Amino acid sequence: MKKSIVVSISSTKFSALAFKEDFEKSIKKVADLGFDGAELAVRNPKDLKVNDVINIIKENNLEVPAIGTGQAYGEEGLSFSDPDEVIRKMAVKRIKDQIVFASHFNAQVIIGLIRGNIEEGVNRTEGEEWAINCLRKSTEFAKSYNVRLTLEPVNRYESNFINTLSEGIEFIKRVGATNLGLLADTFHMNIEEVSIYDSIIQAKNFITHVHFADSNRWAPGCGHIDFKKVIETLKKINYQGYVSAEILPLPDPNSCARLTIEHLNKIKF
Amino acid sequence: MKKSIVVSISSTKFSALAFKEDFEKSIKKVADLGFDGAELAVRNPKDLKVNDVINIIKENNLEVPAIGTGQAYGEEGLSFSDPDEVIRKMAVKRIKDQIVFASHFNAQVIIGLIRGNIEEGVNRTEGEEWAINCLRKSTEFAKSYNVRLTLEPVNRYESNFINTLSEGIEFIKRVGATNLGLLADTFHMNIEEVSIYDSIIQAKNFITHVHFADSNRWAPGCGHIDFKKVIETLKKINYQGYVSAEILPLPDPNSCARLTIEHLNKIKF
Repeated sequence: MKKSIVVSISSTKFSALAFKEDFEKSIKKVADLGFDGAELAVRNPKDLKVNDVINIIKENNLEVPAIGTGQAYGEEGLSFSDPDEVIRKMAVKRIKDQIVFASHFNAQVIIGLIRGNIEEGVNRTEGEEWAINCLRKSTEFAKSYNVRLTLEPVNRYESNFINTLSEGIEFIKRVGATNLGLLADTFHMNIEEVSIYDSIIQAKNFITHVHFADSNRWAPGCGHIDFKKVIETLKKINYQGYVSAEILPLPDPNSCARLTIEHLNKIKF
Repeated sequence: MKKSIVVSISSTKFSALAFKEDFEKSIKKVADLGFDGAELAVRNPKDLKVNDVINIIKENNLEVPAIGTGQAYGEEGLSFSDPDEVIRKMAVKRIKDQIVFASHFNAQVIIGLIRGNIEEGVNRTEGEEWAINCLRKSTEFAKSYNVRLTLEPVNRYESNFINTLSEGIEFIKRVGATNLGLLADTFHMNIEEVSIYDSIIQAKNFITHVHFADSNRWAPGCGHIDFKKVIETLKKINYQGYVSAEILPLPDPNSCARLTIEHLNKIKF
C-alpha cells in the first residue's frame, strides 16, 4: 500500500504564475512529508498547462494515483443523472477530458459527486439508467487510454444514490465495464456502513482506490476511526493500491498533511 | 435512565379521526414494547386536539420526555437565525406554543433544526445573535410554565452552527438561561465528536436529554456505535433522564421500534 493526499488544482487560475508556484509548493510539501503520491482534484483539465503539472509531479518523484472530479458538479452543476440530456453530455465530455489527463499519470478517474442526484420528480430507475449510460460511455472511452474509473459511494447528504459499498458494487455490475472499480472512503463509510471492516471484506474484489479521512473529516487520528484496524483489513484483502487522504484543510492545510503522515507512520503498512 | 422513542404527530391531519386512531395505535405499540415514554414530534401544537393527546398518553401509562420541533423548520422554514425578523418572530411564537403544549407533560422542548442556518451573506456573529435573542425570549417565556428547553447540536449537513456538544455548551453559556440544557444525539456525535465518550463526560453538567440512533440512523444495534459503552458513560456522569430513539423508520416503523427495545434490553441500564 502507498500513501497519498489530495491536492486541489484551482484550474481556472492555474495559468497565473502565482498559482503555479502555489501548486508547486504544495506538491513539494507532499513529497517532503514522505507521501508516495498526490491525488489531484481538478475542475477542468482543459484549463491546465498539462506539461507543467506533469513536470512538477515528476520533479518531486511523486505518483498520481487518482484524479478527483467533483468540482465540476459543485461549481458547474455537471452530472450523470441530470434530467437535461445536454448537461449529461457535458458531464461525459468533462470526464473524457479527465481520462485523457489521467492517462499521463496512469491515474484512476474518480466518479464521485459528478454522478449527481436523482432529482425530485425523476423516476429513480430512469435517473439511475442515465448515470449508467454516462458511465458506459466514459468507461468505453477510457479503455482506449488504458485508464480505470473508480466509483465512490458518498454519504446520504451528498448524494441520494450509491451511498454504501454494496450499492456501489451493485451499480458497477449494472454498468458491466471491466475498467470500473470501487472507491472506499472511510468518512462516508463511518456514516453509511453497518461495519466499516466487514464492508471492506465484502468488497474485496472491487476496491481499486481508498480515501482516508477520520470520522469528522479531519486528518486520520483526529476522530474516532480505528485506522490501524482499517489497514489490517485492507491487508487481509491483499489491497495493493493507494490510501489517499481526502480531508478538510483543518486546522490548516500544512498541519492536516503533517498530521496525516504522522498518524499513518505509526501504523504498520 | 428511562427509554423512549419518537412518535411523529402529523399535526395538520390530526383532527381527522383516522389520524387520531393511527396515533393511538402508535402510542399503544410503544407502550406494549415496554418503552417508558414517547417523545412527540409536532409541527404546530395549535393544530392538535391537546386533550386527546393527553388522554392517549395517560391511558397508556407513558411519559413524554420531550417535544421535537424541527418540522416547523423543514416544512415552513421557521427559524431562529433567519435574516427576516418576521420569520424569527414566527419561530419564537411557535416555540412558545410548543412550550405551552410541553407543560402538560413536564416535557422539554427541543431546539434542533429550528435554530436554522447562518445564511450566505449573513455575518456569522449577527446570525448567532439572532438565534441567541430568540432563545432568550423562549427560555424566559418557558420559565413561567416551568418548562426546560434543550439545545441539540446536529451534524454539519443539517446546520452550519452548533455541531458539537462543546459548541452547544458555548452557546448555552452565551444565552445565559438556567432552563436551557443540552441534547446529546449519538448519530450526530458519530460524525462530529472526536470521541463520543469523552464529549459526554465533558458535557456532564449540561446534558438534559439524549437521542439514540446508530451510526446509519437506524435503530441502535443496526450500525457500529457501541451503545453499551455510551450507557456506561451516561451512568458515569450520573445521567438520570431519558434515552430516546430518534431513528429512521427502517426497515419499517414497527420493526425499528422493536429492534430498538430488543437491543437496549440486552444492556444493563
